[in-house]
Amino acid sequence: MARKTGSHSDITGPRVRAAAQRLIARHGYAAVSMRQIAAEVGVQAGALYLYTPDKQTLLYDLMRLHMDELLSALALLPEPADPREALQQFARFHIRFHLDRPEAVFIAYMELRNLEPENFAAIEALRRRYEDRLETILRLGAAEGCFVLPDAKLATLALIAMLTGVTGWFRPDGRLSGAEVEAIYADMALKAVSA
Amino acid sequence: MARKTGSHSDITGPRVRAAAQRLIARHGYAAVSMRQIAAEVGVQAGALYLYTPDKQTLLYDLMRLHMDELLSALALLPEPADPREALQQFARFHIRFHLDRPEAVFIAYMELRNLEPENFAAIEALRRRYEDRLETILRLGAAEGCFVLPDAKLATLALIAMLTGVTGWFRPDGRLSGAEVEAIYADMALKAVSA
Repeated sequence: MARKTGSHSDITGPRVRAAAQRLIARHGYAAVSMRQIAAEVGVQAGALYLYTPDKQTLLYDLMRLHMDELLSALALLPEPADPREALQQFARFHIRFHLDRPEAVFIAYMELRNLEPENFAAIEALRRRYEDRLETILRLGAAEGCFVLPDAKLATLALIAMLTGVTGWFRPDGRLSGAEVEAIYADMALKAVSA
Repeated sequence: MARKTGSHSDITGPRVRAAAQRLIARHGYAAVSMRQIAAEVGVQAGALYLYTPDKQTLLYDLMRLHMDELLSALALLPEPADPREALQQFARFHIRFHLDRPEAVFIAYMELRNLEPENFAAIEALRRRYEDRLETILRLGAAEGCFVLPDAKLATLALIAMLTGVTGWFRPDGRLSGAEVEAIYADMALKAVSA
């Protein structure tokens, strides 16, 4: 009997994740079923279960992949000796990376509460590694006297929240270009912690 | 015939909203049913529909009430003549107000996407009024020469995102008190826009 929709070999990781990401970003994790994800891929629901055990695993895969990409991209950033330059570079990088991936970013922030505890802990550990890079820049600048930090951890979280906020309102066809926004935010981030 | 659960007169706005807020904050709007909300109130599902037409109206009520409270509290804040003082006061107010209402804040940010267009527009208009107060302080400071703003709207959004970020990590039994966090953030906010 002929299959109505694609055969099992059509189910590749990237296609399944792309479909899951589209649907979860649009409707939210709780509202999306494995059946809908299968339909978006163009296969039967049963076939999807041959690829992934459940929806939680799909969500975790999306969020882990996002963090892996973020950390890989960060590792490629040069490390300027001047902490002020390093901070501005980090700020521009953070905004650019996040503006390029609105769906992944939306899921990374909105669906954290839907991760099971061990998955949550794994994602948090990756996030911590990312934050550590900024905290190291801030501590170095404080040691050199160009930054003043009552609390390095708080300053790290404050700056990351400020920079990530751009994803909440930026539109590519808006009043300011991504590059202009990056420059203005990098400058505010620098001033916020400067001596 | 005796009712198993509370009579209709038990359904008051505050009780329904409190139940809806608890459940939506914990599980998300999409995952919570009117039946579950009725059970949390302690009434039958049918009785809940006598009080509110649907779940969307309940979500909108929660978010509108949150914004009304925010704007009412803001209206009670004194308006210092010195823009630097006004900015620090706004920053402390914003953090304190949001830390006091974790569930309402969580819903206000997480469930915006689940508002129907006209409800979304109404909430956005209230948000805009709130942001305008900060933008006015920033523009005043720029006119007086104590702030430097490449873009007043961007600075407004950047500072609000930074301040709101506290709700993502603050714990009442954590390393720093709310007052300490407020003071550190108010200082960073001031520096971020200062000349």
